[in-house]
Amino acid sequence: MIDQRVLPVSFEYLACDSAASVAQAIHDMVVRGAPAIGVAAAYGVALEAMRLHDMPTENFSKDLESGFTILAQSRPTAVNLFWALERMRRVWSSVVKQEQAFVAQHLLAEAHEILAEDIRINRIIGEYGAALLPDEARVLTHCNAGALATAGHGTALGIIRSAHEAGKRISVIADETRPFLQGARLTAWEMMQERIPVTLITDSMAGFMMSHGEIDAVIVGADRVASNGDVANKIGTYMVAVLARRHNIPFYVACPLSTIDMTLPTGDGIPIEERPDSEVKGYNGMHWVPEGVAIRNPAFDVTPAELVTALVTERGVVYQPDKKRLHALWPSTLR
Amino acid sequence: MIDQRVLPVSFEYLACDSAASVAQAIHDMVVRGAPAIGVAAAYGVALEAMRLHDMPTENFSKDLESGFTILAQSRPTAVNLFWALERMRRVWSSVVKQEQAFVAQHLLAEAHEILAEDIRINRIIGEYGAALLPDEARVLTHCNAGALATAGHGTALGIIRSAHEAGKRISVIADETRPFLQGARLTAWEMMQERIPVTLITDSMAGFMMSHGEIDAVIVGADRVASNGDVANKIGTYMVAVLARRHNIPFYVACPLSTIDMTLPTGDGIPIEERPDSEVKGYNGMHWVPEGVAIRNPAFDVTPAELVTALVTERGVVYQPDKKRLHALWPSTLR
Repeated sequence: MIDQRVLPVSFEYLACDSAASVAQAIHDMVVRGAPAIGVAAAYGVALEAMRLHDMPTENFSKDLESGFTILAQSRPTAVNLFWALERMRRVWSSVVKQEQAFVAQHLLAEAHEILAEDIRINRIIGEYGAALLPDEARVLTHCNAGALATAGHGTALGIIRSAHEAGKRISVIADETRPFLQGARLTAWEMMQERIPVTLITDSMAGFMMSHGEIDAVIVGADRVASNGDVANKIGTYMVAVLARRHNIPFYVACPLSTIDMTLPTGDGIPIEERPDSEVKGYNGMHWVPEGVAIRNPAFDVTPAELVTALVTERGVVYQPDKKRLHALWPSTLR
Repeated sequence: MIDQRVLPVSFEYLACDSAASVAQAIHDMVVRGAPAIGVAAAYGVALEAMRLHDMPTENFSKDLESGFTILAQSRPTAVNLFWALERMRRVWSSVVKQEQAFVAQHLLAEAHEILAEDIRINRIIGEYGAALLPDEARVLTHCNAGALATAGHGTALGIIRSAHEAGKRISVIADETRPFLQGARLTAWEMMQERIPVTLITDSMAGFMMSHGEIDAVIVGADRVASNGDVANKIGTYMVAVLARRHNIPFYVACPLSTIDMTLPTGDGIPIEERPDSEVKGYNGMHWVPEGVAIRNPAFDVTPAELVTALVTERGVVYQPDKKRLHALWPSTLR
C-alpha cells in the first residue's frame, strides 16, 4: 500500500503479508480513510489465509480467527472496517468445509470484489454529487476523502473529480486538517495531480472564507453515519458544518452504504478514537510545544444530522437524512 | 525583546537599536500581540530619537519622521500600533522646540509610561474579568493574549492569571492556533510557567470540546475593535465565537481601550493582513505541502458584535457591546 504518512514529500509503498502487518499499517495510518481501511482489512484477512493455508486445520481456523480479531482492534471509529470483516467472515463461513487453499482463494477473490465495488460505488456517488454543484463552484473540503481514502476516485473528492470530468470549472479549498495534515498533504496533492485548482488554508480559516463569500458548498466524507443521519468524520468537520449552516452554504456528506451503521440510533453511540499526544505536539518527529504539556487528541467528531444538507450515496442523494430515509436506502428484501 | 518565534524550544533575546530594527521585528513576529506591538512601536520611536539626537536639526526631524513611517508600515491590523505612534507624536509635538537630547529623553519616558500603563491596565482587566469566571471554570482561549502579547500579565490570560491568584481553580484549554502556533508554543508555555493547568488541542477540536460539555467560557484578546463592537482577532477566533454561541457558552473579549478604534463604524473597515505563504506550508522551515500549491493566509478575522457576550476593558465589563456602550467608556471631557 502507498505510505500516506510520508506523502507528498515521498511516494513509498509498504508491503504487507499478514493480518498483523495490515492491522499495524491501519493503526499507524499508513492507510487511512474509512473505505480504504475496509478494503485494507479485507486484504488483511485474505493475506492471512494465504499465509496460513498449509497449516493443520485446527491452527488455520484459530489463527485466521486471531487475524480477524487483530484487524478489528486496529481502529475503532470507521465502520467500514467492521463491515468488511463481516463480509469476509460470511465468505469464510460459506466455504469453511473446503480445502484451505480454496478458502484462501475465495477470501482473496472477495477482497478483490470489495475493492472493485468501492471504485464503482465512488463513481456513482461522484455522478450523483456532481449534479449538485453549479459551474465554477468553490468547494471547501476537510481532511481527505479522495482516491487515497478509498479504493480509487474518492467519495468527497470523487464528486469533485466527476464534476471536473463533466466540464464544470470546480475549484477546491482544502482545510489543512491538523494534526495529521491530510488536507495539506493528501487532498492538495491529489487535486494537483488532476490539475483541479486547489487552495490550501489552515482549519482556522474556513470561517473567514465563508464570511467573505468565497465558499459555495462543503463536501466531506464520513467514517460512520448513525441511523438517524448523525455523521462521524475527521475532527473539525463539526465546526465546518456549524459555520456552513450560519452562512447558508450546503453541507454535503459523501458516503457509501458501507459507512452507514443502522445498528446505532444516534451519533452518541459512535466510538471516538483518541490518538497519541505526539501527533498534536508537532509533526513528523519535530515538536514545538513545551515539555510535558497535557494534550487531547480526539480523531473524529460527530456532526448532528440537522446540519447535514444531504448524504450522497450510491443509491442517490438523501436530503435531510433521518432514520426513515436512511432505512429506505436498502431494498426491502435485504432489510 | 524576547524572540517569540523560537519559544518554547529556545528562550532568546533580540536587541533593537532603531525604528527600522523594531519595525522589522514587528513585521517578522519576533514580538506580536496588539498591546505588545504598541509598546514596541513606542520604544522604536524612542530608540530612533536617541540614535539621531546629535544629528543636525533638519535631519533629526526628517529621519525621526521616517522612523514613524516605517513603524506604521510594519503591520496593518492591530490598532494599538497606530495608537502608540500617535501618542509618541503628541509628545514630540509638545517638546519639538527643545534640544534633541531632551526630546529623546521625553520620548523614552513616554515609552516607559506606555509600558507601565499597559501592565496596570491588564491588572485591572484581570480583576474585572476574574469576577466573571466561576470556580473550576474550564476556559478556552485562542492564540496568545498573555504576558508575551502585552507589557506583562496579559489581557485574556491576565484574566486567567487574576482568577488563579484569587484562588479560583481555573483550567485552560489552548487552541494551538495555526499557522504561527501561538497557542501551542506561547499560551501553553505561559500557563505552565505559572502552574495553571493547561490542555492543548488543535484548532479543529474546539467544537468537539464544547459539544462534550468541556468548556465553560471562552476568553480571547483583540487586535482591533470597531465602534460597533465588531472584533478583529487572530484567524480562527470567529469560528470559536460561532461555536460558543451554538453551545450557549459565554464569549468574552479582553481588550484595553487602546484596542478600540472609534473611527471605524464596523469591522468591515478593519484592514486584514495577509501573511506569507511559507507560514501555511509548514512550520519553521519544514514544509509538508506539495510543491507549488496555492495558499491563503489571512492573519485575522472579524467576529461580529452580536456574538460577543462582553468586552472586558480597564473601565469595566461592556455586555452586548454597541456604539453607544463603547462611546460611554470615554469620559465626556475627552470625547
